[in-house]
Amino acid sequence: MSRRIQGPGAASGPAAQFAQAVEALRADYLPAAMPRVAVALSGGLDSMVLLRLAHAHGLDVCALHVHHGLSPNADAWRDHCAAAAAGLGILFDWRAVVVAKGKSGIEAAARKLRYAALGEMCRAHGAGVLLTAHHLDDQVETVLLQLLRGSGPAGLSGMDPANRAPGLLGDERLAMARPLLGVARADLERCARELGIAWVEDESNTDPRYARNALRHQVMPALAVAFPGYQQRVARSSAHTRSAQRLLDELGQQDLAACLAGDALDLARARLLSRDRIDNLLRHWFTTRRLAMPSTAWLAQMVAQILSARDDAQLLVEHPDVQVRRHRDLLHLVPHPPELAGLRDPDDAGIIDRHAQAFVWHGEAAIDFPDYGGTLHFDPAERGVDSAWLQGQSLAIDFRKGGERLRLAHNRPTRSLKMHYQASGIPAWERGRLPIVNAGVDLLFAAGLGMDCRHVADGPGRVALRWESATAAIPG
Amino acid sequence: MSRRIQGPGAASGPAAQFAQAVEALRADYLPAAMPRVAVALSGGLDSMVLLRLAHAHGLDVCALHVHHGLSPNADAWRDHCAAAAAGLGILFDWRAVVVAKGKSGIEAAARKLRYAALGEMCRAHGAGVLLTAHHLDDQVETVLLQLLRGSGPAGLSGMDPANRAPGLLGDERLAMARPLLGVARADLERCARELGIAWVEDESNTDPRYARNALRHQVMPALAVAFPGYQQRVARSSAHTRSAQRLLDELGQQDLAACLAGDALDLARARLLSRDRIDNLLRHWFTTRRLAMPSTAWLAQMVAQILSARDDAQLLVEHPDVQVRRHRDLLHLVPHPPELAGLRDPDDAGIIDRHAQAFVWHGEAAIDFPDYGGTLHFDPAERGVDSAWLQGQSLAIDFRKGGERLRLAHNRPTRSLKMHYQASGIPAWERGRLPIVNAGVDLLFAAGLGMDCRHVADGPGRVALRWESATAAIPG
Repeated sequence: MSRRIQGPGAASGPAAQFAQAVEALRADYLPAAMPRVAVALSGGLDSMVLLRLAHAHGLDVCALHVHHGLSPNADAWRDHCAAAAAGLGILFDWRAVVVAKGKSGIEAAARKLRYAALGEMCRAHGAGVLLTAHHLDDQVETVLLQLLRGSGPAGLSGMDPANRAPGLLGDERLAMARPLLGVARADLERCARELGIAWVEDESNTDPRYARNALRHQVMPALAVAFPGYQQRVARSSAHTRSAQRLLDELGQQDLAACLAGDALDLARARLLSRDRIDNLLRHWFTTRRLAMPSTAWLAQMVAQILSARDDAQLLVEHPDVQVRRHRDLLHLVPHPPELAGLRDPDDAGIIDRHAQAFVWHGEAAIDFPDYGGTLHFDPAERGVDSAWLQGQSLAIDFRKGGERLRLAHNRPTRSLKMHYQASGIPAWERGRLPIVNAGVDLLFAAGLGMDCRHVADGPGRVALRWESATAAIPG
Repeated sequence: MSRRIQGPGAASGPAAQFAQAVEALRADYLPAAMPRVAVALSGGLDSMVLLRLAHAHGLDVCALHVHHGLSPNADAWRDHCAAAAAGLGILFDWRAVVVAKGKSGIEAAARKLRYAALGEMCRAHGAGVLLTAHHLDDQVETVLLQLLRGSGPAGLSGMDPANRAPGLLGDERLAMARPLLGVARADLERCARELGIAWVEDESNTDPRYARNALRHQVMPALAVAFPGYQQRVARSSAHTRSAQRLLDELGQQDLAACLAGDALDLARARLLSRDRIDNLLRHWFTTRRLAMPSTAWLAQMVAQILSARDDAQLLVEHPDVQVRRHRDLLHLVPHPPELAGLRDPDDAGIIDRHAQAFVWHGEAAIDFPDYGGTLHFDPAERGVDSAWLQGQSLAIDFRKGGERLRLAHNRPTRSLKMHYQASGIPAWERGRLPIVNAGVDLLFAAGLGMDCRHVADGPGRVALRWESATAAIPG
């Protein structure tokens, strides 16, 4: 090996590539009015180097950490991150997320929650761009996994150097950037050693249950032997595919504009397009409506219906997020109630774990909880909890963690909150915004549902709890 | 493993998939007027099964073999193929190709020659479609190799189930089809055993110098362990990418039509397009002109020039096949002389080996050699070879094999034919059509160049050899 070892300051080293990426970022994504960037800091090698480079570059930077319940070492990682940020004089914040256990797709669910929490913290600290430490090897893994999954160009495009991801971060103004996307992991490790950066190893990185780890430990070593330097070439391939995908989007936009009649698709016009182009048009339509991408089989069925000459026939196809209806040769996307907006029931997908807020009730008519987005009312009532008893309790308001159980009346069964919400017709995406109130370890009250019957009785001096959301009137 | 072993007649077995593919073929590629198909028969497992399926399906089929000088077993393979075809009562033909040895890209050169020879035989036997035995594992290998090479969507598309490839087969009317593209190699092997088909193993399939073999033996086993069934998914991915590539072609065609001014590209109009779209437009332009696809770096430089505002500036960029010239904001592709048409010098790329045709000269003024496309003249001359001597010689006319050397005069050096042709300005693609004449083992005459001085002298009773091409007058 005659390859020259490059220091972090070398022209093509991590620092130089970081600097180039930040320059590119300034033009499109980093508004002068919102110059702060956030670094997603896991405590691992990659993000520790990223934080150091961002700091050394003189950026106004904050460090944001997401605490996963998945690892027994999660507390240690958070403390390591906090200490590293403090050592550099960088603002640090963190959120815990709780992923529903024992479910399939645990990795995907954890990712969703992680980005939602990071987006929330970005907004809280006025950061306009979230920097993540994805590097060349990550990019290659992503592309290979998408190929092994049977994905089309959107998947084979891999990760963008920078993009907006409102579905992930929950905000259209926030951008996400990956300034180390061209840097090999080996170069980051060298950089870390030279700068004396300490990092923690995520033991989940060796868990072969994850497809990514199987690829990393079983396939990529074989590739490296037979095709040295393949990572750069796979990354180039993905850049070509990103360019192609941008063209497909451009074509989809053009065709959609030509075929839209109000909110519906004019099938007479769509039928003039080639079959490939109709597929692309429909995919683009689903994307612009932020609906889950339909499967190939679903799309094929859809297009077969569209192409059929029976213009006057009624048609209804079910998609997880919408109903597709044909009426008088116009195609309508009709949202199911509720139209899911990223937030789902914590029993299915986990939550961002805001810490319970402890409080004591001194007999006020209501208490504002701005962190929970509403007001808790204590209404005098003939049936409710005893006022004197309640004033002696250590109370806590919290969002659901999943698994809580509630009994509304002695003649009714104890059921999970999820089942109660379903029975009450409260949409999944609303449920995450409804707090609960505990007295000690007992669930006392669930917004949207009511009080647990354990402490409820008829009589004088009683109060009924009621939640009033600041944004929408939800009966409580 | 509870997977049911499927016989060749099962619904999704090789025979059923073959039948489906042939049905699809009939619609687009197999004209009723030219119903014969040719099977490219190497003698290996895949093509032996293909031949049997085509025969069992009742197609009018011929079997075509290409004899490679690369293997010491090449004769045995040819004989095996001939016997198999004879056993089924199928017409068999073959050509030998000689690949220039010791050159880089020997695999690519061999492939080019192989398809040129197959195209030639298809024409000779009136076959409209060439069937090749590429299967699912081949498709997956192709896609992975393209990815590992850094290719864009055109490469990641893999092989088409059917297409025309005039650049490869040398004829726009010929189609190529791969009816086993969805069949796993393991299923072909099972089918072969059940039908009692014998096949030969190509020992070059285990040569780790070939990238494909490195992939096959080192990488794909690891993939199969970690991602069982990944082949079907990679094939699905390539189908998505083929669809995307067809859209890019459609967009390129649309943009090219909008930007062409005669044969030139109107840069004022091209500049209105997005950067990705200009790239795609240029790639499409090069494809329609059958020019080699420019590299990404070349294209980037080209586009930078196009986008520059200096409309009045002259510009000249060299491409291997053409010069790109900008003049008054129009972009012209100016072919180098000669515009290469697939045939190159045998010293660089090898040849299709037509067998030398032995003959004796009885004093005729000229002899027609239709297989060589022209007439050999024996002109009485003051300087030439002795007539009496020449009539006693075992002569042979042949195309070049590469490496032949010629001395035109005693005061001039012995040089390779390639150097002579270069010096005489005979374009590379013309050279393959110029025969040579040997007397025994001595090179006597090379069309386009002249006679070797060894047997040439001044005096009475002498003749000068001259070649007259049937299609073009080339001095000889």
